[in-house]
Amino acid sequence: MVQTERMVDVIRGPICESWHSGFAVVTNAAGEVVEGWGDLDHVILPRSAVKMMQALPLVASGAADRAGLDDSQLAFACASHNGDPVHVAKARAWLETLGLGEDDLICGVQKPMGDKARHDMLRAGETPCRVHNNCSGKHCGFLTLSQDLKADGDYVNPDHPVQVAIREAIEAVTGEASLGYGIDGCSAPNYAATVRGLGRGLAYFAAARADGDAMARAAVRLREAMMAHPVLVAGEGRACTDLMRAAGGKAAIKTGAEGVFTAILPDQGLGVAVKIADGATRASECAIAALLVKLGVLDGNDPVVKKRLNPEVPNFAGIITGEIRPYAGFPA
Amino acid sequence: MVQTERMVDVIRGPICESWHSGFAVVTNAAGEVVEGWGDLDHVILPRSAVKMMQALPLVASGAADRAGLDDSQLAFACASHNGDPVHVAKARAWLETLGLGEDDLICGVQKPMGDKARHDMLRAGETPCRVHNNCSGKHCGFLTLSQDLKADGDYVNPDHPVQVAIREAIEAVTGEASLGYGIDGCSAPNYAATVRGLGRGLAYFAAARADGDAMARAAVRLREAMMAHPVLVAGEGRACTDLMRAAGGKAAIKTGAEGVFTAILPDQGLGVAVKIADGATRASECAIAALLVKLGVLDGNDPVVKKRLNPEVPNFAGIITGEIRPYAGFPA
Repeated sequence: MVQTERMVDVIRGPICESWHSGFAVVTNAAGEVVEGWGDLDHVILPRSAVKMMQALPLVASGAADRAGLDDSQLAFACASHNGDPVHVAKARAWLETLGLGEDDLICGVQKPMGDKARHDMLRAGETPCRVHNNCSGKHCGFLTLSQDLKADGDYVNPDHPVQVAIREAIEAVTGEASLGYGIDGCSAPNYAATVRGLGRGLAYFAAARADGDAMARAAVRLREAMMAHPVLVAGEGRACTDLMRAAGGKAAIKTGAEGVFTAILPDQGLGVAVKIADGATRASECAIAALLVKLGVLDGNDPVVKKRLNPEVPNFAGIITGEIRPYAGFPA
Repeated sequence: MVQTERMVDVIRGPICESWHSGFAVVTNAAGEVVEGWGDLDHVILPRSAVKMMQALPLVASGAADRAGLDDSQLAFACASHNGDPVHVAKARAWLETLGLGEDDLICGVQKPMGDKARHDMLRAGETPCRVHNNCSGKHCGFLTLSQDLKADGDYVNPDHPVQVAIREAIEAVTGEASLGYGIDGCSAPNYAATVRGLGRGLAYFAAARADGDAMARAAVRLREAMMAHPVLVAGEGRACTDLMRAAGGKAAIKTGAEGVFTAILPDQGLGVAVKIADGATRASECAIAALLVKLGVLDGNDPVVKKRLNPEVPNFAGIITGEIRPYAGFPA
């Protein structure tokens, strides 16, 4: 049996009706585990929580500069965005500068993740496009690197130069040889990592210095871009955006599907990773908030933080029926 | 640490990226455990999976007959429905026969659970009402019993005669003194039970005979009503509806929030209960399907069953990225 740690409780009245367990790690600049929960050698798919690692070759190779990308585009390349008008405009403008169109995106069509954008679309009788896909920024980054490499064709194929460069970058920062991959929601390969390796990769981003090598400089630019443009990384009302704003430049924070959440803490040189074993987002949000409060990056009394750390659970009549909260023993 | 059993795996490529653990029990007509998974004395909130138990006093007291309710209304009283037009019409017609209106429902306003009904509502610029609440049928039942008891006022108050009668009925069939309650999504008290007790309550329904006492006869009518009207209990495309149709009269099947699923198997005199510890519906659907296949009530090769037992996970581009499936050791 895989060793997990109980992290989050779901309370209704006097009863803990559900709870969530998983893995977490805090890793220092030397790549050493400061504190861990659950089996750190367990292999996970980090999903969108590694988009900043998937953007490393784009920047480190010089392709981003040659294409004239600004920091807002680098943040957008790391995004799991809402498909709000701001994101859609960003994707369309980027594609235009590449001389490409929506049909060149291989990410598939997704209804906007943002409730307002999705409802507005329904009310207007419109249909979603590939630019609405939460990964369209990442795919604009893939296309930019692909053009720079003069590599044609299926840029999400694991043997394509873009994905090979990404695999090598992830192997470099996590310190792990590839452990295989799954196909992600947007059709790109998502490289597996141990919880320990994911923590090391995030600590690499946290410890990177502007006077380092090309990869280190790329890591600095990407983490700073994310912190400078929190809305582009997710969207209004989303946890990544809210928590990055609340952290006020002390953390770059990124969610991934199936209960993954990661954070880069440059001031402390720390990487933080959470994976909820059952894949629940409500739990990964609570757990990352709890860890970042413990690490002094977030204030647990800030209402924006409390909404993720300890949300009330109202029912349809507006009555508060219970709450979600960190398990008493986590992160201790 | 609470003892749970791993039940459901979520696979992407070569990786099991998430999994779900929980509790399950199969109980016979004598109220004895035939087989159990996890700590059967763990206390859970069974949520909507006990709506047929909450409807027992309505029928056993004779109130349903005095109000002239037919079996379709009894099925609707046990429903967590989609808020489709068929359900909304049912609720409005029932309220009218009681001389009441939507404002008399205390269930709160909920957008239709059914995607089509919800999208149609958005497109038409309409707003949801209390009749759209998935519990509006249950509340029509509460109001009917309340009128019959000549009890005024707040019929979801735990001290109201309606809720007292429900608590007594649940205590009688589960064989457990009340273990407290949580306030449910619709504001009614949801009485806690052990997994073992919930299994006993379901076995009571399975073993009940038409020549029994008033409570037993009520149990027979409610289980038969559910099986005769699977669409009214949930809606097109929903697991309860699909699986009851697939079972062809061999099982009354009912979901509850936070990973609960229950089944009543009259031919075998068995009750079946599942609670996923993390509350995931994708897992409770898979686990109940796996148990009902094992018990011979469902055919695992039936596409409708496979959709719950072993669904493929497509991505936005339509590529199958993985699957959800019972854990290798469950239900064994």
